[in-house]
Amino acid sequence: MASVSILVVLDLVGIFVFAISGALVAVRKELDLFGVLVLAGTTGLGGGFLRDVLIDATPPAALADWRYLMVPIAAGLVTFWYHPTLGRMEPYVNVFDAFGLSLFCVTGAIKAMDYGLGPAPAALMGMVTGIGGGMARDILAGRVPVIFRGELYATPALAGAAVAATIHQYDGPLWAAATAGGLLCLTWRLMAIRLTWTAPMASGPASA
Amino acid sequence: MASVSILVVLDLVGIFVFAISGALVAVRKELDLFGVLVLAGTTGLGGGFLRDVLIDATPPAALADWRYLMVPIAAGLVTFWYHPTLGRMEPYVNVFDAFGLSLFCVTGAIKAMDYGLGPAPAALMGMVTGIGGGMARDILAGRVPVIFRGELYATPALAGAAVAATIHQYDGPLWAAATAGGLLCLTWRLMAIRLTWTAPMASGPASA
Amino acid sequence: MASVSILVVLDLVGIFVFAISGALVAVRKELDLFGVLVLAGTTGLGGGFLRDVLIDATPPAALADWRYLMVPIAAGLVTFWYHPTLGRMEPYVNVFDAFGLSLFCVTGAIKAMDYGLGPAPAALMGMVTGIGGGMARDILAGRVPVIFRGELYATPALAGAAVAATIHQYDGPLWAAATAGGLLCLTWRLMAIRLTWTAPMASGPASA
Repeated sequence: MASVSILVVLDLVGIFVFAISGALVAVRKELDLFGVLVLAGTTGLGGGFLRDVLIDATPPAALADWRYLMVPIAAGLVTFWYHPTLGRMEPYVNVFDAFGLSLFCVTGAIKAMDYGLGPAPAALMGMVTGIGGGMARDILAGRVPVIFRGELYATPALAGAAVAATIHQYDGPLWAAATAGGLLCLTWRLMAIRLTWTAPMASGPASA
Repeated sequence: MASVSILVVLDLVGIFVFAISGALVAVRKELDLFGVLVLAGTTGLGGGFLRDVLIDATPPAALADWRYLMVPIAAGLVTFWYHPTLGRMEPYVNVFDAFGLSLFCVTGAIKAMDYGLGPAPAALMGMVTGIGGGMARDILAGRVPVIFRGELYATPALAGAAVAATIHQYDGPLWAAATAGGLLCLTWRLMAIRLTWTAPMASGPASA
Repeated sequence: MASVSILVVLDLVGIFVFAISGALVAVRKELDLFGVLVLAGTTGLGGGFLRDVLIDATPPAALADWRYLMVPIAAGLVTFWYHPTLGRMEPYVNVFDAFGLSLFCVTGAIKAMDYGLGPAPAALMGMVTGIGGGMARDILAGRVPVIFRGELYATPALAGAAVAATIHQYDGPLWAAATAGGLLCLTWRLMAIRLTWTAPMASGPASA
């Protein structure tokens, strides 16, 4: 953990981008500086916290390594001061966010298997790592999670996590599991943004 | 866990019925297929997850046994396609839900004691197992938990859990603890539905 | 735990005051008796539960000691019956609440360090202990946490927790860590109430 490996850098970049999306929601909801920082931290770290609590990897890594706490604080402060600029850059933020999602779903699934879960629940934990922060952000901001509202976000994460878990299960090399799973999630998510694919809704009238 | 015992079957039936209630809420809130599946899973498994995290029985059983993940997915898909029919069957769903509540409050309390809790906190954990999934469902769906709104739901669960915990504490046989606690909760809950009993509200004007 | 030390008494007083604030919110939202009790318990114990789950101190102390469960129930019942009186006493409740916050942020930080966390994440856990219950209360009551809305509440808790963690890190005596951190938080919070200090908001238009 102490050395700056490529994986840690990628992880911190993913947290940074997720944290910016949380801070932007907080600014738009007219929360104060503290609310901006909390939503930045929750969005950046919440998915990993939820996974670590469920697979019994507590205390979460982010509480044992100060860099993991500094990154969402930095993202929150940047957003607090420069939110009009960041708001205009949102299409780019969404692309970086897709990178973060791809990274988290893969690392989350592999970590869950290293803690003894089978591949199917590990894939679920990978998805939770990717989407948990955004769900916590929306609940704290008082809205129904946007990923329940037709946006194709969780399915690519689950698919990528499942591919990574399957390769890891059959003792494939880590880089192959991470690359195959991550690329599947990334491609699918970017195409969903680009082509505005949506998830299916239940048909017919919803009975009261 | 691998053998299909009567307890596992009952547990899976309880999860199935809870998951249907979660999926119905999701359809009515016009969430997409993913939202339906998440609310099904959260409602079916959330109470047990919350208990397991609190009593340090992680990873939760549902993450170690794939059948526990398949059941809410099946319930979510069935609801997604047949929600108008299921919506009309809601009175029956409520009766099955009362069975699930009775089962969960008893098994939750006994499991908590097996992990070292005293009977009073174990009864609380039994109630949490029964009501936690529905509370998580309502928070995710953006509404105040319905069980805070006068419906008599948690009290029968707490009473049933307390009876089961007390019998278990004095080394009574498991079947006696489960039957006495479960029947108390079931009878009380069914009478509350039938006779529309409600929980008391604070009287007088609520000061602003 | 079994002896009634001064720390346990202070802890129970803090839980009682927090629980009253939760029960008052529940009465104003017109929840039933059960909702009042759950919001009392969540507000009084939620911060400590969240900390204990994150630092792997499960089961939480409150589940191993029945007095910790009785206090929020008592606070909830008192509020349920005497809420008009308590509502009028709210300025005093706020002062007691500041005591509870000061106590929780200090004990939370020190407990986290005793479980192996470094001083920076321990300070964060101290803040979480102080503010977590109120945040859970607001989410259950269906509103955005009030501490995100300009009220200066979390910053004093973080500052007090950081001071306590720093003194504890350099092997200062426990009473010095607790007193210095607690007094800083208490003074700051009381002055914020008295002088209606608020947290900064992001300037400029929030881009849609």
